[in-house]
Amino acid sequence: MGSSERRVAALLAHLAVQEQDEEQLERNPTSAAAPCPKAMADFLTRDNKELRAAIFDFLRDPLYAPNYHLSMAGFRELTSQRMAKFVGQRFFSVFDYTRDPLKFQAALECLNFCDYSLAIKDGVHFTLCGGTIAKLGTEKHHPILRKMDTLELPGCFAMTELGHGSNVMGIETTAQYDPATREFVINTPNNEASKFWIGGMAQTAKVSAVFAQLTVNGKWEGPHVFVVRLRDDHGGLMPGVRVADNGPKQGLLGVDNGQCWFDHVRVPRDALLDRFSQVDASGRYRCSIDNVAQRFGTMIGGLTTGRMLIAQAAIDACKIGVTVATRYSARRTQASSRPAAPSSWLGPFGDRAILGYITHQRRLFSGLATTYAMHLAMLHLKQLVVQGGPEAGKQVHVVSSGLKAGSTWHRKRILNDCRECCGGMGFMAANKIGPMLNDMDVDTTFEGDNTVLMQQVAKPLLDAAGKAGATRAPPPPAVKQLDLCAACVGKLLAWREQMLVAGLAADVGAAAARGGAQAAAAAFDDSLDRVTTLGWAWTDRYSFDAFAREAASAPAALREPLSLLCLLYGLCRLEAGVECYLSAGALSPEAVKALHARVNVVCRQLGAEGGRLALALCDGFGIPDHLLQAPIAIGDWRSFQG
Amino acid sequence: MGSSERRVAALLAHLAVQEQDEEQLERNPTSAAAPCPKAMADFLTRDNKELRAAIFDFLRDPLYAPNYHLSMAGFRELTSQRMAKFVGQRFFSVFDYTRDPLKFQAALECLNFCDYSLAIKDGVHFTLCGGTIAKLGTEKHHPILRKMDTLELPGCFAMTELGHGSNVMGIETTAQYDPATREFVINTPNNEASKFWIGGMAQTAKVSAVFAQLTVNGKWEGPHVFVVRLRDDHGGLMPGVRVADNGPKQGLLGVDNGQCWFDHVRVPRDALLDRFSQVDASGRYRCSIDNVAQRFGTMIGGLTTGRMLIAQAAIDACKIGVTVATRYSARRTQASSRPAAPSSWLGPFGDRAILGYITHQRRLFSGLATTYAMHLAMLHLKQLVVQGGPEAGKQVHVVSSGLKAGSTWHRKRILNDCRECCGGMGFMAANKIGPMLNDMDVDTTFEGDNTVLMQQVAKPLLDAAGKAGATRAPPPPAVKQLDLCAACVGKLLAWREQMLVAGLAADVGAAAARGGAQAAAAAFDDSLDRVTTLGWAWTDRYSFDAFAREAASAPAALREPLSLLCLLYGLCRLEAGVECYLSAGALSPEAVKALHARVNVVCRQLGAEGGRLALALCDGFGIPDHLLQAPIAIGDWRSFQG
Repeated sequence: MGSSERRVAALLAHLAVQEQDEEQLERNPTSAAAPCPKAMADFLTRDNKELRAAIFDFLRDPLYAPNYHLSMAGFRELTSQRMAKFVGQRFFSVFDYTRDPLKFQAALECLNFCDYSLAIKDGVHFTLCGGTIAKLGTEKHHPILRKMDTLELPGCFAMTELGHGSNVMGIETTAQYDPATREFVINTPNNEASKFWIGGMAQTAKVSAVFAQLTVNGKWEGPHVFVVRLRDDHGGLMPGVRVADNGPKQGLLGVDNGQCWFDHVRVPRDALLDRFSQVDASGRYRCSIDNVAQRFGTMIGGLTTGRMLIAQAAIDACKIGVTVATRYSARRTQASSRPAAPSSWLGPFGDRAILGYITHQRRLFSGLATTYAMHLAMLHLKQLVVQGGPEAGKQVHVVSSGLKAGSTWHRKRILNDCRECCGGMGFMAANKIGPMLNDMDVDTTFEGDNTVLMQQVAKPLLDAAGKAGATRAPPPPAVKQLDLCAACVGKLLAWREQMLVAGLAADVGAAAARGGAQAAAAAFDDSLDRVTTLGWAWTDRYSFDAFAREAASAPAALREPLSLLCLLYGLCRLEAGVECYLSAGALSPEAVKALHARVNVVCRQLGAEGGRLALALCDGFGIPDHLLQAPIAIGDWRSFQG
Repeated sequence: MGSSERRVAALLAHLAVQEQDEEQLERNPTSAAAPCPKAMADFLTRDNKELRAAIFDFLRDPLYAPNYHLSMAGFRELTSQRMAKFVGQRFFSVFDYTRDPLKFQAALECLNFCDYSLAIKDGVHFTLCGGTIAKLGTEKHHPILRKMDTLELPGCFAMTELGHGSNVMGIETTAQYDPATREFVINTPNNEASKFWIGGMAQTAKVSAVFAQLTVNGKWEGPHVFVVRLRDDHGGLMPGVRVADNGPKQGLLGVDNGQCWFDHVRVPRDALLDRFSQVDASGRYRCSIDNVAQRFGTMIGGLTTGRMLIAQAAIDACKIGVTVATRYSARRTQASSRPAAPSSWLGPFGDRAILGYITHQRRLFSGLATTYAMHLAMLHLKQLVVQGGPEAGKQVHVVSSGLKAGSTWHRKRILNDCRECCGGMGFMAANKIGPMLNDMDVDTTFEGDNTVLMQQVAKPLLDAAGKAGATRAPPPPAVKQLDLCAACVGKLLAWREQMLVAGLAADVGAAAARGGAQAAAAAFDDSLDRVTTLGWAWTDRYSFDAFAREAASAPAALREPLSLLCLLYGLCRLEAGVECYLSAGALSPEAVKALHARVNVVCRQLGAEGGRLALALCDGFGIPDHLLQAPIAIGDWRSFQG
């Protein structure tokens, strides 16, 4: 029995009880018991519960109340004030990055519910800059970290260059060792090598983790990281450092992104983060990792935590968006004391809440189910991180890439659906969805462009298939097509992934057989659209499996609603991949009709009795009102004034 | 021969020559002749060319240069200044709304290329308020219109109420005629009846077209429109008028939306816009339209022009977005002077422009083709409007609904793809795409929620099918599946629409047979997801047909590139509906593979030689640099500083 079959068998066992429940539910859509929101919130939060509660409570401070009236300059100032006060509480330390990663992430995650600018500004300082120094540096760098903990040294992360967006290996900033003075000389050789889009660079950062190509004794050793002071204690720029402001953006106005040029800036030998690579005083280079490419992999390890925080932020934003839109839609009627307009002009209106319409339900409830799925998948990723070790390490890269791309693309679609489902109210800043859409739009391309990240997911799958010679399309799973149960869904999702892997591996393999490695690379390039699809298929299968396992092992009172949501998530992902199922005959046209009907049935279960179950599942996210904030989600929209 | 067959025959004739060209193109992807941009721009602009050129030229004024540094208050002030200066030029008059509708629209459309806040603020004043007064008023209202032309009386449009978003028939503001004083009493009976989200209401409007339920002599006569002064000449609120500011929004910060309550505000008898309905001094009501619902249809006619302007604005935004993203991607390489990272970490990089990747081409070129398609479809709608008459009038409602929904939903997807394809540069405000995404996010729900508008498209199709008994699925067209030509594409798009109509009409008809009108309405409600799909299928077919006719009748030098774009648009819409084709056996799995391959082939033709053809087609939009503005589209991004 292969691992995929084992997974399926486990699912079947877990879900046997649930299937019966579902049949009952279909007969009586209102029979699903709404979960206790507190119990659900408790289930969704696995670590650092007290810390999270304390930070949520701290965020009651009026300084953290939304203010959408500000200009860019004003919002930057407010964000700095918010950051200073938050950091002043010492809820966590930058040393937790390596000492207690879950605590580190938990503290930063709480900011997602308040303001994305604040979350990103703290993330850049603590994770990208601080985390990199903590991981790649040694004890001699601890004084810097201690000053970062007090914000005496606000930090930034100077990796990206104007000319080398996603290609970090190709950066051109140089670091040359000068044995005469025992210094490194950091230099920007041309404008394309200027550090670009660096959060905190324009105004606030005093120290930076700078990526540069190291040359020692005339030998190139690949990208290394150096701690470079950008500004003195009074905020004046250091000699040789030139900075420009990247100016206003689509969102994230509280973060001061900037561009930076180094003109032969000299830094002491200790500026090199030297846990893995050292240059001794006489100018001898040593590194525990021989291969430049592997070395590089170690250098950019800090990006993984950043990627996880971004994925979680996307998921947390969906929690807010779905809760706001579902609550408002459940209360919003198109009330009319007048006869309805004739059908040729306007659709039917009445006292029915807008959440009762299938068009609304499909958009909001698929978003609800997806948000749960991605949250639970992230919990699995966190377990992998805690587990550690080289095998988990490889997995973490793949899983964090897939979940970052998947959750941020889902986030974009889900928040957009929430916005549209609220009509004009969704466009009003006070209701939070619109500003989140603006602020977070960047998450699909920063910390790894999603299209490139999906290639990161696909590559190892194709490599493994190529090695194993698994290039033949697997037969479709035998499923009861007209009665799509959770077990069937799991089988179908796993099969689609294998199917796409086999097809791509066959094409790339054939090209390799014809023309070697170059032809294989070209074939991969030519298939990048299918590669992205494979990345999605992997993400769907991984997240569904995580969700199914979680639903099965949840406290009894939560199992039923979680299983229902898990089913809905899986069904929606089948719909997203329906072309593949139809083309290969894995689902018949009748089964596809049944699939759509089943999605609608589950939506109606969630929306029954005024959306009782859906509303309870939103409450299960555990977002306190002072962070939910949206007037349409908290008060009675009917009494809205101004 | 039915109309659909005639269409197909015409297409086949028109496209015979083109098919040969395409075969040649496939053998040699670089053989397509790039069109002369000036000739293309000339072809795309059908009316008021000199006026448009004059306004574009006027917009060189530094007052209209982008400024993304402002707070909401500052941007509102700037927008008012921009509007005043523009209106001061008297490029057109509010009387053109009825006198020369194409001129009226042309003038307002030019603002789409400058700033959406300005376009909307002018649109509310001239179209919604002015146009309604021009159309529903009589000569006695002309003094008001003349003062609107000079901006002495800035106007707003008080239709929407807090409790009655899309259900205009259900508004609750009342207008009671008082024969004693010969006045109407305008009143807001409860908070849900407050006018809500009204552009210009919060600060600037002095006059408003107010929708209210008219009662004369105790008899309800349905919604009517009244001209009501909100503020006096000095900007002070009139007695009985209370206003609240709707505050910051996701975008459109230059427009001051507000909420308004009327406390038994008395207006003279002449305040009623009385072209169709009159109340004489003694209090006798007369109307040339007996039926309240039909009367209502006349009242909201002004929305059609607004809807057309919004659709065109969405298309114009796509022109900007696609041009910016294509130009940048054609120049942007992931240059590297270092050996590439191993494939397990990052995908292949090199000196290849990012536009060379199929993932980029599919996103940008489908957007390019769709933008052309929607623009040409809008030209057909404008012809319908000019044509006039009752039959065209019905058509205008359906077509404007479909094209507004289709073009704004396309806009959201296309601008998003453009944003992501530019990476971080797309998030930078100066490059325009991000701010357009923020400002325009509302276009999918204002001036008619897209989901509701798609129902407007579907309803008459279903009614007609029901009457004609056309509820049987039509047989799939016989097409050469593995060689998808433009004629095949047209047949398949038309077939899908008919297929969806037949299926829905059958379901609604069966429900009606079982349970009468109420059951039919419930069946329609239960199928709203498929209704939306039908709206899309209609929009796809309508736009493709318009595109194909335009391509066929274009000047010879433009025919080839236009036909290629038309084919790509059609193929992409087939991909969007692929489930339907596979399920019904209209396309075999092999044909679907061929479909995807063909999309890729056309993309490669457009992207060949550094994207020569695609770039020329972008230039064909005729956007001058001073309105394109984005640094990444105009200058050399490599020399970017700050």
